[in-house]
Amino acid sequence: MTGIPHPQPTRFKPVSWREVEEGCAHIAEKILATNLNVDVIVGILRGGWIPARLLSDYLGVDTMGALEVKFYRGVGETAEKPVITQPLIVNVRDKVVLVVDDVSDTGKTLTVAVNFLMHYGPRKIVTATLYVKPWSMYRPDFYHSETDAWIIFPWDKAETVVELVAKRGLSIEEVSKITGESIDFIRRIFETRNKASTTSSRAGQD
Amino acid sequence: MTGIPHPQPTRFKPVSWREVEEGCAHIAEKILATNLNVDVIVGILRGGWIPARLLSDYLGVDTMGALEVKFYRGVGETAEKPVITQPLIVNVRDKVVLVVDDVSDTGKTLTVAVNFLMHYGPRKIVTATLYVKPWSMYRPDFYHSETDAWIIFPWDKAETVVELVAKRGLSIEEVSKITGESIDFIRRIFETRNKASTTSSRAGQD
Amino acid sequence: MTGIPHPQPTRFKPVSWREVEEGCAHIAEKILATNLNVDVIVGILRGGWIPARLLSDYLGVDTMGALEVKFYRGVGETAEKPVITQPLIVNVRDKVVLVVDDVSDTGKTLTVAVNFLMHYGPRKIVTATLYVKPWSMYRPDFYHSETDAWIIFPWDKAETVVELVAKRGLSIEEVSKITGESIDFIRRIFETRNKASTTSSRAGQD
Amino acid sequence: MTGIPHPQPTRFKPVSWREVEEGCAHIAEKILATNLNVDVIVGILRGGWIPARLLSDYLGVDTMGALEVKFYRGVGETAEKPVITQPLIVNVRDKVVLVVDDVSDTGKTLTVAVNFLMHYGPRKIVTATLYVKPWSMYRPDFYHSETDAWIIFPWDKAETVVELVAKRGLSIEEVSKITGESIDFIRRIFETRNKASTTSSRAGQD
Repeated sequence: MTGIPHPQPTRFKPVSWREVEEGCAHIAEKILATNLNVDVIVGILRGGWIPARLLSDYLGVDTMGALEVKFYRGVGETAEKPVITQPLIVNVRDKVVLVVDDVSDTGKTLTVAVNFLMHYGPRKIVTATLYVKPWSMYRPDFYHSETDAWIIFPWDKAETVVELVAKRGLSIEEVSKITGESIDFIRRIFETRNKASTTSSRAGQD
Repeated sequence: MTGIPHPQPTRFKPVSWREVEEGCAHIAEKILATNLNVDVIVGILRGGWIPARLLSDYLGVDTMGALEVKFYRGVGETAEKPVITQPLIVNVRDKVVLVVDDVSDTGKTLTVAVNFLMHYGPRKIVTATLYVKPWSMYRPDFYHSETDAWIIFPWDKAETVVELVAKRGLSIEEVSKITGESIDFIRRIFETRNKASTTSSRAGQD
Repeated sequence: MTGIPHPQPTRFKPVSWREVEEGCAHIAEKILATNLNVDVIVGILRGGWIPARLLSDYLGVDTMGALEVKFYRGVGETAEKPVITQPLIVNVRDKVVLVVDDVSDTGKTLTVAVNFLMHYGPRKIVTATLYVKPWSMYRPDFYHSETDAWIIFPWDKAETVVELVAKRGLSIEEVSKITGESIDFIRRIFETRNKASTTSSRAGQD
Repeated sequence: MTGIPHPQPTRFKPVSWREVEEGCAHIAEKILATNLNVDVIVGILRGGWIPARLLSDYLGVDTMGALEVKFYRGVGETAEKPVITQPLIVNVRDKVVLVVDDVSDTGKTLTVAVNFLMHYGPRKIVTATLYVKPWSMYRPDFYHSETDAWIIFPWDKAETVVELVAKRGLSIEEVSKITGESIDFIRRIFETRNKASTTSSRAGQD
């Protein structure tokens, strides 16, 4: 992990698909242990979608909806704050709603999601994330485990490679070691992302 | 695969997460080879969500939306037809839209999705699926490969186990062999699904 | 107004279309006097829609959206509370939003609407109603006038006739006098509503 | 009507609120005469909203939704075409849906609205407009009457005044005569619109 220009060594936690599946199965078991009968699963865009989809399979809940939360700095404001950019359009009145995200880091996303969804008149809202950071101001009702490391989810690999290479000067080989992913696949998605951003900026010029 | 009470031996194609990732990377590469610059990715609920999320990572497209299509038999009708149960609420006017599903089987889902989204005035709609069945009446613009087997996606494992055990009388061990998944994990999600449906029917009694 | 079985004589305030137009023009002038530049008008379903549409004409704002608020009693609760039954699906981030209703009575509808819409990250939310009741716990930013009477809006005539005749035993002639509407038109919409509810209950029997 | 710089004298049809109410009552009666039991009323934004709201009162249907259709010229296209800019988010599967607009002129708006809503799997869709133009390529299922004049609806007064004064050089007095509205009210909403557009362009400069 040498070569990372960071004040102190960052610890990475690459998460395998197997850990994602076992984490979701673990959460499903915890939920069932409370005798809770989930009616609707809401996946937070974009981090929560894949665990939400797996929980839908494990819990046999086929009513799913999306809720998108993005962080923006408002006009004249200094700090970014979470904003609802796509409201849920599934009826959840008097229903038990499970809101799913991949990680609760600051905890702001889930806090705003729950406050927002309370206005729909659900019977109950519970939240689940695969991981929770120790400093999170919000504790999800259900989670798989706690970690203070930089989590690399399977759905963030390309994003992570771009960030580690472009912003931290790491090599493909170093990223391969950190993520536990093969050099070939890391190179492949790195090149795909680069080509996509080139296409995108060319298109922006028209 | 003996023991399956089916007119003719069903061939199964269990898909690993590695194949999902490589299939999505393959699709991303095909899209970029056409110099197409995708603005918005629309994931079809519930099958298309996980490949849509991976393509969002590989293509660097962070605007995603959901479109839910379900099959229903209308009043007085004999055949099921695809119905939009959650419309897209992302603005795609004059945008290039990539619609993603896991498989194009009959082809009806993608056909209705494209017809529906055309009304939003997009600049262009293209479609992608991991797999396509040879008999599909609709050919996605981009796909990973063709197969006539019963595909078992990683996000359908619990659903598949329940179906193979309950409706076809297979044992956990047989399902483990078919899916290439460990007996332990198959048993675990099978028990979770069973417990969930028990909770659910109990709740239904109140 | 004799014959109304009510503890104390109810005072009615029938509102003419002319008063609706002048009230909306008055609100538009008040808004402009503050140099506020409205980007989006949100009409609360179902009371706010007609004034919202007129304000859209007077202020030249052609971006409008709907927000539906209904009152329900939750499971195990004694009091009804306002619930969002249709969220706004127009993007209002960093926009000036004008939320419109016909009257602020308890004030609960506008309170929940504003709290809900704050999550979308607007630049500013202001509210307007034609009338406000003296006991309303919420004062709209802009309103035409205050009254403690039972307001009869032009879009509530059929509802009002049904209620006054069926629940209070008034005659068509008495309702005509109260509303200032012709006996013929009152009778016409009363018969329409009755026929509609008969059709509706017949349909419910199949 | 002298002074209008138009190839041939335009005939105007100003519609009073009384005519709006009687037109909507007429439509409600026609619908009930067919024994149709409407479940959901969809108002087309922005023209259809006020008649939709009145029909909701007359028919006693309290489930309403919005559908916005706007005309745009696509990239590289010569003619404008109707585009869905806000999809309906009310569930209408197996329901009888009444789609309402103020006028069917070219007929394109209702055609696209019906085609779009068919994808939601309704039991039946019927359409209603107050007026229909003789050349409309689409005949609504229910309408009040036919006219080839330039219709001035009560919710288009300010828009109409601005257009007749700015683009056709008419005076406030001429517009007053055409619309049958008092000079005072015409002047009032004309000044409001002008002030609003000044505020708006000032705001655009920041």
